Amino acid sequence: MRVLTAGESHGQYEVGIIEGFPKGLRVDQAFIDRELKRRMSGYGRGARMALEIDEVHIVSGVRDKVTLGSPVAMLVRNRDVRIFAAKNDKQEQLVVPRPAHADLAGALKYADKDIRNILERSSARETVARVAIGALCKQFLAELGVHISSFTLSVGSAAVSRIPSSIAAILSAAKKSQLNCPDPKAELRMIDEIDKASKARDSLGGVCEVRAEGICPGIGSCMHFDKRLDSRIAGNLMSIPAIKGVEIGLGFEYAAKRGSAAHDKIYYARGQGFFHKTNRSGGIEGGMSTGEPIVARIAMKPIATLLRPLDSVNLTTHKKAKAVVERSDTCAIVACGVIAESMVAIALTESYLEKFGCDSLGEIKANYRNYLKSLK
Amino acid sequence: MRVLTAGESHGQYEVGIIEGFPKGLRVDQAFIDRELKRRMSGYGRGARMALEIDEVHIVSGVRDKVTLGSPVAMLVRNRDVRIFAAKNDKQEQLVVPRPAHADLAGALKYADKDIRNILERSSARETVARVAIGALCKQFLAELGVHISSFTLSVGSAAVSRIPSSIAAILSAAKKSQLNCPDPKAELRMIDEIDKASKARDSLGGVCEVRAEGICPGIGSCMHFDKRLDSRIAGNLMSIPAIKGVEIGLGFEYAAKRGSAAHDKIYYARGQGFFHKTNRSGGIEGGMSTGEPIVARIAMKPIATLLRPLDSVNLTTHKKAKAVVERSDTCAIVACGVIAESMVAIALTESYLEKFGCDSLGEIKANYRNYLKSLK
Amino acid sequence: MRVLTAGESHGQYEVGIIEGFPKGLRVDQAFIDRELKRRMSGYGRGARMALEIDEVHIVSGVRDKVTLGSPVAMLVRNRDVRIFAAKNDKQEQLVVPRPAHADLAGALKYADKDIRNILERSSARETVARVAIGALCKQFLAELGVHISSFTLSVGSAAVSRIPSSIAAILSAAKKSQLNCPDPKAELRMIDEIDKASKARDSLGGVCEVRAEGICPGIGSCMHFDKRLDSRIAGNLMSIPAIKGVEIGLGFEYAAKRGSAAHDKIYYARGQGFFHKTNRSGGIEGGMSTGEPIVARIAMKPIATLLRPLDSVNLTTHKKAKAVVERSDTCAIVACGVIAESMVAIALTESYLEKFGCDSLGEIKANYRNYLKSLK
Amino acid sequence: MRVLTAGESHGQYEVGIIEGFPKGLRVDQAFIDRELKRRMSGYGRGARMALEIDEVHIVSGVRDKVTLGSPVAMLVRNRDVRIFAAKNDKQEQLVVPRPAHADLAGALKYADKDIRNILERSSARETVARVAIGALCKQFLAELGVHISSFTLSVGSAAVSRIPSSIAAILSAAKKSQLNCPDPKAELRMIDEIDKASKARDSLGGVCEVRAEGICPGIGSCMHFDKRLDSRIAGNLMSIPAIKGVEIGLGFEYAAKRGSAAHDKIYYARGQGFFHKTNRSGGIEGGMSTGEPIVARIAMKPIATLLRPLDSVNLTTHKKAKAVVERSDTCAIVACGVIAESMVAIALTESYLEKFGCDSLGEIKANYRNYLKSLK
Repeated sequence: MRVLTAGESHGQYEVGIIEGFPKGLRVDQAFIDRELKRRMSGYGRGARMALEIDEVHIVSGVRDKVTLGSPVAMLVRNRDVRIFAAKNDKQEQLVVPRPAHADLAGALKYADKDIRNILERSSARETVARVAIGALCKQFLAELGVHISSFTLSVGSAAVSRIPSSIAAILSAAKKSQLNCPDPKAELRMIDEIDKASKARDSLGGVCEVRAEGICPGIGSCMHFDKRLDSRIAGNLMSIPAIKGVEIGLGFEYAAKRGSAAHDKIYYARGQGFFHKTNRSGGIEGGMSTGEPIVARIAMKPIATLLRPLDSVNLTTHKKAKAVVERSDTCAIVACGVIAESMVAIALTESYLEKFGCDSLGEIKANYRNYLKSLK
Repeated sequence: MRVLTAGESHGQYEVGIIEGFPKGLRVDQAFIDRELKRRMSGYGRGARMALEIDEVHIVSGVRDKVTLGSPVAMLVRNRDVRIFAAKNDKQEQLVVPRPAHADLAGALKYADKDIRNILERSSARETVARVAIGALCKQFLAELGVHISSFTLSVGSAAVSRIPSSIAAILSAAKKSQLNCPDPKAELRMIDEIDKASKARDSLGGVCEVRAEGICPGIGSCMHFDKRLDSRIAGNLMSIPAIKGVEIGLGFEYAAKRGSAAHDKIYYARGQGFFHKTNRSGGIEGGMSTGEPIVARIAMKPIATLLRPLDSVNLTTHKKAKAVVERSDTCAIVACGVIAESMVAIALTESYLEKFGCDSLGEIKANYRNYLKSLK
Repeated sequence: MRVLTAGESHGQYEVGIIEGFPKGLRVDQAFIDRELKRRMSGYGRGARMALEIDEVHIVSGVRDKVTLGSPVAMLVRNRDVRIFAAKNDKQEQLVVPRPAHADLAGALKYADKDIRNILERSSARETVARVAIGALCKQFLAELGVHISSFTLSVGSAAVSRIPSSIAAILSAAKKSQLNCPDPKAELRMIDEIDKASKARDSLGGVCEVRAEGICPGIGSCMHFDKRLDSRIAGNLMSIPAIKGVEIGLGFEYAAKRGSAAHDKIYYARGQGFFHKTNRSGGIEGGMSTGEPIVARIAMKPIATLLRPLDSVNLTTHKKAKAVVERSDTCAIVACGVIAESMVAIALTESYLEKFGCDSLGEIKANYRNYLKSLK
Repeated sequence: MRVLTAGESHGQYEVGIIEGFPKGLRVDQAFIDRELKRRMSGYGRGARMALEIDEVHIVSGVRDKVTLGSPVAMLVRNRDVRIFAAKNDKQEQLVVPRPAHADLAGALKYADKDIRNILERSSARETVARVAIGALCKQFLAELGVHISSFTLSVGSAAVSRIPSSIAAILSAAKKSQLNCPDPKAELRMIDEIDKASKARDSLGGVCEVRAEGICPGIGSCMHFDKRLDSRIAGNLMSIPAIKGVEIGLGFEYAAKRGSAAHDKIYYARGQGFFHKTNRSGGIEGGMSTGEPIVARIAMKPIATLLRPLDSVNLTTHKKAKAVVERSDTCAIVACGVIAESMVAIALTESYLEKFGCDSLGEIKANYRNYLKSLK
C-alpha cells in the first residue's frame, strides 16, 4: 500500500492517491465529505472556515461506488486560487519568514527569497488529502470491525479533569461539544482560553487522544523495527503539522512507574480468548496490537501564524521585520484530532493488508475470519 | 539508503546491512565497539552485561578501513547460542507469555505455542545491529560537523532538577555518571530507586534526551509527510523496544503555551546567517532542521521482565500461571539513550544523503560546502 | 523520487503524481501536450484517436510555470465517461474475456464476473499519466543535456534494412514518417502490412528503439542489483502493456559473439576524457551509464483486441464464446515508442537525482558541474 | 518483503538478508548448498571453480531448521580474502579498466584511481547471496506447488535445434548435460565452441530459458505498473551481471506475428477450470500470471574479462594499456541460468506474499487454498 498526496494551499486541488487498496469496498462518499467537514470544525477557527466546504471528487479506482482494486485518486478543490492563477512577477513577494513555520528553513533549503513558494505546500491545508484517504481507510477498517475516534484533552492550560470510562460515553459527550471535548466543564474553560487568546491576537495548541477499537491482536510486527505498529503510528502522527509529541498508552507517565504497577496482566476467558483488564500499553506491545483499544495522545503546538506577528528578519535586506501574516485560526485542536484519526487509519490499513493480503475485500475478510478462528 | 537488521537473542549473530552508504568514509571500528559497550552500560543492568563484550565484525563494504560505497554488513556474535544449537524438541517450550512483552501478541499472530519462537527476535538484543549501523552513520555525520549525544532525565520518579545550559557541560557532567545523568544529586536518587526496585525484584523505566548538534538548516522536507525529519525521527525512536512516548523540543509542554510565548523568533547576524535565540522547536520546523540543535525526548516503560513475575496464562492449558522469567535488568535507561542516538543518526543520515547525493564522501562534502555558501 | 498513477479508461481523469521532483524547473506545458499527442499518433490507430486530444492539467507542484519542489500532480481528462457515470446494474456485464488481455487473470484474481472491472484499469489508456510524468522528467533531463528519442524498427514482418548512423539523421528521417520510421522504403512495407492486417480485422506489433543521449558516465549503480540502471530500465520498459522483450545494446545478438568481438574498447582524448569508439553495450556497463548513448529495444506483441474476435469462454456459463470487442487499433508501435521514452526518462531521472541530490535545479546543476569537472 | 545483499569478491563473506519472509517453513540447508554448487558448475568455468565449495551459514531467522518469521540472514564465506586482509597501500593498484566491466564507469562515478575498489563489489561473485536467498524462496514456492528450472538454449553460435516438449523431458535431458542443455547434439557443438574460444583466450555468452511451473493465475498486478509480474521479472533478470536481453514467452518473435496467430485462446474444462492450449504469452498477461508456466529467456554477453586483454587506457597516465586480467572463465551460461532461477523465485515470492499475506506458512497455505477453491 502506498500513499502520495499533492496540492498547494491556493492551488487548484488537493490530491491524494492510495495504491494497493483492495477491491470490493462500497465507498460512502458522504462519509468522506463529513470527515472533511470535521477537519474544518471546532471552536477557534477563523471565519473563513465557516464559509468553505470541502467536497471530495473520486476520479479513479471506484466504479458505481465500489472500489476496483486500482489506485484511488481523490481531488478536493481549493476555493481561493488567485495566487496560482496570477503571474508570479505580478505578485508581491513574501520576504519575512514567520517563526515556527517552514518558511525560513524552506527558503534556505530551496535557495528562494519568496516564502510564498514554501508556505503554499507546507500549509496545513495539505492534510485535506490525508483526511480523504484516511476516510477511505476507515471504511475499509470498519468492514473488519475497527473504529477510530478522537477527542480533546486540553487546550492551552485548560484540561479535562475527568472523562467517562467507556469510549461510547466519551464520544457521546464529545459530540455535543464545540471542541470535541467529553468534559463540559473543561470545555467552558477551553473556550474561555480561546476567547482570551483571540482577543490578544495570539494562538493556542492542545492535546488530543486517538482511539482505535476492535483491533485484533497481532497486527504490526516484532520482526523488523520499521514495521512495528507503534513506529508507524508515531511516524504518521508526528508528520502532522504542529505536532511535537506522541504518546502511546501511559506514554511519559510510564517512565515514573515500577514494572509491577505498569504492566497489563494477561487473562483468559472461554469464548473471549486472551485479554487484559487494564490497557496501560495503549493496545500495542512488542510492536503489535494486543487486541485492546489502541490509544495514542498527541501534543499540538500553538498555531504558528499570529495576528500580532513575531519578530523576524527580511530575507533580502536582512533587516529586522515583523513576520508576514496569512489568515489564521486561534486554535485548531479539533481538526488535529481528525487528521490524527486519519493517520492512524492509514497506518492500521497498511498493517492489516500486510497480514491478510490485499486483493479484494471478500478475500481479506475470509482470511481474517480464518485468523480469528485460530485465536480461540 | 536502506537498513535491514537480523538476528535472534541466542542466535549466532546480530546482523546489520546498510545500503546506499557513501564511499570514502574512514571507519573507526573501535568507535563502533565503544558504542556497543555503551549500549550495555549503566547502573541497573544485570550481572551478565558486565561479562559480555560485543565486538563488531565488518564483513563487507569496507576495504582497509575505508568504505567502498557498497553495502556495509556488520556482524556481532552472540555469546550464548545453546538454544539455537539444540534441537527444538529437546528443549522445554515456553508457554506462559510475559505481560508487556511481544510474547502473547506474537504467539497469536504466528499461531505458535512456544513463545521462545517470538521472544528470540523481539528481544532488545536486536538493537545491537542498530547501534552498529548508527555508529557508522555517526561517523559519516561527524564529517559534516554533526554530533549526537544523549543523557538521562529521569529514572522512575527521580528526575534531574537542573542541568547545565551548554551541551558540553551537560555531557561532561553526564560522563562521570553511572546513569549518564548530568545532575549528580538526581543521580543519587536514581540509583536509590534502582536499588529499591532491584531488591523488590521489580523494574524501572525513565526518560532520556537526545541532541544532535551542528545540523545545517533545510534537512528533511516540508513537501511530503513521510519525508519530514520529525516524522522519521519519531518513527525511528518509537521503534525502540519499550519506548512509549516521543517529544521534540518543548513537546507536550508546547500544548499549554500561547503562540507568542512558544515560538522561536528569527534573527540574523552577519557571518552567522539566520538564527534563533531560543530553541523551543527542538531544531525542527515544518519538517525541516532549523539549524539549531535537534532535541528529542523519549519515555521508556519499565523493563517488561520482572524477576517476581506477573500473572499470566498458560497458552496451552489456558490456566492461570506466572510468566516465564528470562534473565533481566532492573533499568536500562542508559542503553536506551545510546540506541536513541543511533536511531536519530540513521534518520539524519538518510535525510542528508537525500539532499546532497550519496556516491562518495568527497562529492557529498563538496556539495555540502556549496550549500553552506548559499546560506550566507 | 516516487511515481504513482491512477485512472481508468472511461473514468474521469488519468492522474499522475511525481514526488521528490526538484524545484526550479521551468515547465513547458505545451511540450507535455505534444508528447500526449505523439502517444496517440501513428499509422494504424483507430479513427477515434484522430478525434481525441489529450490535454494535461498540472494541478499542483508548479507556480507560474516553475516547479516548487512539491509533488507535481497532473490530470488528463478522459472524453468518454459514460461507463463510470452510469450505474453498474444498468450496464451490460462483459463476461467473455479477451485472450492476451488482463481480462481472465484479473477476473480470477479479483473473483469478478464482469471483466469491465478489470479492463478499465488494465487498458493502455493508463499510460497517459506515465507519458505526462515522463515529459516532465524529459524537461528536467534536458537541463542536464540529456535527450531521449525513439523510432520504429519493424512492424510485423516489415523491418528497416538500413538506418542512418547519426541519431540526428535518424530522427530527421523518422520525423517525416507516419510510423516514426527512419527508413522510407521499410515504412511503405510497414504501411502495407498494417493495411492488410486492418482489412483482415487482425492486429500487429513491432519493435522500436529508444535512445538517450548526453548521459554522463556513472549514473546508476554497481552496488546493489535493484539500483542498476539496466535493471530499472528493463523493469520500466517491460511494464508497458504488450511489451514482451527488452534488449540493451546488442541484446540477444551479444550471445552469439565472442568477447573479443563484442566488447567496447576504452580510449582517452584530452578535453574529451574517456570514450568508446563502439557502443555495443548500449551505454550501460556494470549497471552504470558509460557516457555513450543508452540504446534499448523493445518488442511489442500484436494488439490484443481483434475486431474478428478469438475463441474464449463465458465466465458465467463456461460455454465457448467469442471474446468481447472494445474499439481497437491495428498497430500502436509509434505510441509504444513514446511510452518507452517516458519510462526511460523516469528511470534516468530517478538515478540522476540519487547521484546529485534532489532539492532544486540550481543546486543539482552546480553539483553536476562539479562532477563533470572531476571526470576530466 | 525486502532483500538486501552485501559482500565483495575477496571480502570475508557474501551476505544476504530477506525480510518479511514467512514463519513456519522447514528449511533444507543442503538444498541451498546444492544451488550454490550449481552456480559454480558448467563446462567452461575456470579451474578455480572446481576447487571451491560454497556453503551457506544461516545465522538468523531459522530455529531448528524452521523459519521464525524474522529476517533470515545468510553468510557464504569467501575462500580468498588476502586482498581485504592486507593494507591498501601495500597492494598494487589496478589502474587499467577492463572493457565491458563496471571498472571505468565505477572509477569515474566514485572518483577513484584504483579499480580494485569497484570490481570487488561489481564482480559476479555477488550473485552468491542472491542464489542463497533464491533457494529459500524456491522452498517457499514449492510449498505452494511452484517449481522453477532453467536450461541452456545457446552458447555463442551453437544453439539447440530441438527440445522435448514437456518440461520433465527437457530437464531430464539437461540433467545429463555439462551445459544444462537438453539437446545432446547441440551440446557437443557448444562444447566445441567453448574449447575453441578457450584456446583463443577469448570468452562466450549464450541464451538460457527459465521456467516456473505450477503458478496459479492472478499473481502480480494489472493495477500499477511497478507491481506487474513481468516488470518485476524483467527488472530482476536484467540486474544479473552480463545480461543484456530479456524475453517473456515468444518475446521478440511476437513482433513479427499477427494477433490472430499470436494470442492464446481461452478454454474451460470442468475440474480444471480455465486454461490455454498454447502458451505464447509465457504465462503472463496484463502483468499477471495466467496459470500457464512462466517462460523467460535471457541473453548473456560474453564474459568481460579476456585472458588476452583488450585495449584500454591507464586511469592515471591516460596512456594506452592492456586491461588488467583477473582470473576468468570462458563461459558461465549454466551459472547464469541458476541465478536467473533465483531472481525469478524472488520476484514470484514477493508477488505471492502480496496476495496471500506474509505471516506464517500455515496461514498463507489456508489463504491460498481458499483462493484456489474460488477459481473453480
